[in-house]
Amino acid sequence: MRELNYAMLTDFYEFTMSNGYFQNGFKDRIVYFDVFYRKVPDGGGFAIAAGLDQLIDYLENLHFTSEDIDYLRSKGVFCEEFLDYLASFRFTGDVWSVPEGTPIFPGEPIFTIRAPAIEAQLIETYTLLTLNHQSLIATKANRVVRAAHGRAVLEFGSRRAQGSDAAIVGARSAYIGGCAGTACALTDELYGVPALGTMAHSWVQMFDSEYEAFVTYCKMYPNNACLLVDTYNTLKSGIPNAIRAFKEVLWPMGIRKCSIRLDSGDIAYLTKKARVMLDEAGLTECKITASNSLDEYLIRDLLMQDAKIDSFGVGERLITASSAPVFGAVYKLAAVEDADGNIVPKIKISENVGKITNPHFKKVYRLYDRETGMAMADQICLHDEVIDDTQPLTIFDPLATWKTKTLENFEAHELLVPIFKNGVKVYESPALNDIKVHCEREVGRLWDEVKRFENPHTYYVDLSEKLWTIKKELLSGFKK
Amino acid sequence: MRELNYAMLTDFYEFTMSNGYFQNGFKDRIVYFDVFYRKVPDGGGFAIAAGLDQLIDYLENLHFTSEDIDYLRSKGVFCEEFLDYLASFRFTGDVWSVPEGTPIFPGEPIFTIRAPAIEAQLIETYTLLTLNHQSLIATKANRVVRAAHGRAVLEFGSRRAQGSDAAIVGARSAYIGGCAGTACALTDELYGVPALGTMAHSWVQMFDSEYEAFVTYCKMYPNNACLLVDTYNTLKSGIPNAIRAFKEVLWPMGIRKCSIRLDSGDIAYLTKKARVMLDEAGLTECKITASNSLDEYLIRDLLMQDAKIDSFGVGERLITASSAPVFGAVYKLAAVEDADGNIVPKIKISENVGKITNPHFKKVYRLYDRETGMAMADQICLHDEVIDDTQPLTIFDPLATWKTKTLENFEAHELLVPIFKNGVKVYESPALNDIKVHCEREVGRLWDEVKRFENPHTYYVDLSEKLWTIKKELLSGFKK
Repeated sequence: MRELNYAMLTDFYEFTMSNGYFQNGFKDRIVYFDVFYRKVPDGGGFAIAAGLDQLIDYLENLHFTSEDIDYLRSKGVFCEEFLDYLASFRFTGDVWSVPEGTPIFPGEPIFTIRAPAIEAQLIETYTLLTLNHQSLIATKANRVVRAAHGRAVLEFGSRRAQGSDAAIVGARSAYIGGCAGTACALTDELYGVPALGTMAHSWVQMFDSEYEAFVTYCKMYPNNACLLVDTYNTLKSGIPNAIRAFKEVLWPMGIRKCSIRLDSGDIAYLTKKARVMLDEAGLTECKITASNSLDEYLIRDLLMQDAKIDSFGVGERLITASSAPVFGAVYKLAAVEDADGNIVPKIKISENVGKITNPHFKKVYRLYDRETGMAMADQICLHDEVIDDTQPLTIFDPLATWKTKTLENFEAHELLVPIFKNGVKVYESPALNDIKVHCEREVGRLWDEVKRFENPHTYYVDLSEKLWTIKKELLSGFKK
Repeated sequence: MRELNYAMLTDFYEFTMSNGYFQNGFKDRIVYFDVFYRKVPDGGGFAIAAGLDQLIDYLENLHFTSEDIDYLRSKGVFCEEFLDYLASFRFTGDVWSVPEGTPIFPGEPIFTIRAPAIEAQLIETYTLLTLNHQSLIATKANRVVRAAHGRAVLEFGSRRAQGSDAAIVGARSAYIGGCAGTACALTDELYGVPALGTMAHSWVQMFDSEYEAFVTYCKMYPNNACLLVDTYNTLKSGIPNAIRAFKEVLWPMGIRKCSIRLDSGDIAYLTKKARVMLDEAGLTECKITASNSLDEYLIRDLLMQDAKIDSFGVGERLITASSAPVFGAVYKLAAVEDADGNIVPKIKISENVGKITNPHFKKVYRLYDRETGMAMADQICLHDEVIDDTQPLTIFDPLATWKTKTLENFEAHELLVPIFKNGVKVYESPALNDIKVHCEREVGRLWDEVKRFENPHTYYVDLSEKLWTIKKELLSGFKK
């Protein structure tokens, strides 16, 4: 059992800054922060957004307990008025976000908050950690699932996850990204992600013989008999014993559905041999599951080698996104409101041009071709701009403005939807299965060129002319 | 707020197997499982054990709620007697473990459990995930800290951690591994790891000028004034403004202690320039902190380039152990007890010789040179063997038995200590600071050759002759 107040899961500097805002007249200053990411993990062409559901839960329940206040007081740097303020703290801001399961691209806001400065500051750490982690896993899962070309991918990584949360919500994110199920019972209990799994080597070792272990298992779970065949010797002992057990126990019950799992050895070679042995024994309906440190690259290789695999169990490399285990979304100030409620855009300069932020309160449109239904480009606009998709639209590369493209016959969809208004949730979270379907459908609307694992086509994420002009003016201002 | 029953954080197959054990007379069968790992992350020479504290908490509180039972019942595969058994389930086994902060080597048991089969099975997932994750981070932190050669390393990675737990207990593990503190307020509140941190770029942007932001900060926190100098232009604006603010606010208060932080740009170049500027301004006591995607390799490079850095803030690459984000400890059956209480050793065969397990109920000795105090080798023995360290001891490589070494004048320490006896905790967890000190001292007892980042000397982990003989006999048995 674990009961934690995640309000305190925040960088300590959020408190020192907030105490400073409180004492320097910025307490009620309305600010705008954007979450966006800069680089697709693994060199891919897009990522999948996830984590919003947990973030909503966090924002709705955000508060500080008296123990938290006592802890902060013990630091000796916070004024009592600020601590009083925290004691009755609630989130009162507005939030817009892309729905979970949506493909997202570098540089575009995926989550925008408008709130008093202190509120916006205190939620930074948890917001980033939640969106970063869950988008990372959904993105990785989507790659693995695409590599499997329609074969089921099962998330098996709990034991190698980076902590409990990584296992629990990581499995949920993997499901959004396209996995068919998980080994984690708690993720099933909490979120309804189908939990799957049958036996470990220890089951086989517990019995006097592998055959006895298999027969016992088939008798107990005749409708879900997946036998692990590599405890002793896959080809000489595991598969022959499995064939005997299936025929002796399942066939008399009229059951032909069964499966074997391989967790070691040369999977390509062994599954091909296994397929032949099973077919020759009349077990043509027996499925083969493979596991053992798989990821999208190994799955692609196995399928290229014509390995006979019906489903994949993918563990550590998915649940930690091991080939690129960091999703680098950042949380950047985009604007502040002055005393009269005017929005003053803010920019963060960097010597690296790509790291300069997009200022102002913004929205994002995704532009789909009406004919093909495919996504053509995203455009980041000012919050009050409206794209008229009955008229042609000329978009341009914000870094190389001479590169333009005129879109016709397109449909414009707003990417960010309202989640909170004045601290009240105004969003109905979709059912998890609907999120998964949304992800699959929206990934289906990306061109194959964007979906390549390596060297994908860079999807267009452009700025509206108004936004681009404001950005340019702010940059010139700094130069002076 | 989050309240979760981690008893359900287990692979679903643990339940299907346990239900099988329950119905097939294995319910009270006493088994022995070992946790060990096979490969040091990042090609290092050793790892640091962590996670025991949380695991103890889990084992002491292990139970299933009525909601958990209802969830399992809904699966339609578990018998009611088994569900009744789970409803009153408590952990009743014995546990031995290496203390947190101990250097550990591949192949040796770091955690051994003796318990009824079902109990041992149900705790597998959580046990592995906890030890894997926390040892991973403690090990990585130790590498980073060693690269910093005495300079403080601060853990700054919460926002890029793989979920909440990864941030919270990850920071605790980083502290064990040698970090001086964390940015995570909750880890400080829960575990007493010093939380540190001052300002983000948003603080600087909130004010009309960088200078005003700095002055305000120095007035608020004169004893902990660390100014982030890279929001606009580090050398032209950030450092000059910091110097002015320090002199105008801190000097009149008699405060010379202060610091600046750099989070972008060419850290080697900028810190050298910054040092000169600060020294010329008389701010010789001003410290320089550097952050921005650092790890042990970059820190080593920065110091080789004579960068002027007093402390390092290390974020995403530490908290995710990004260069090798999986700690691959496994949980393997080592023995079962027969009806008469005799221990029957079990072995897991593999075509890969290194993957064959060490059978039987075991203990581990670490052998220290009495003269130098340095660790010379570990020896894995049968549980009832005692090493007489008043006599010379000949050890041999278990894979290349002709390679022998005779130790004299050594001290033998048992590595695994009792944690639970019949489900009751018999271990007093050390204070976190004592764990950190233990880690530092024990790492200090390893030869430099073992501590190289690349191509370290392989520390000897040998088997006693008795254990080696039993292993050999079991292997011959399988061959027949």
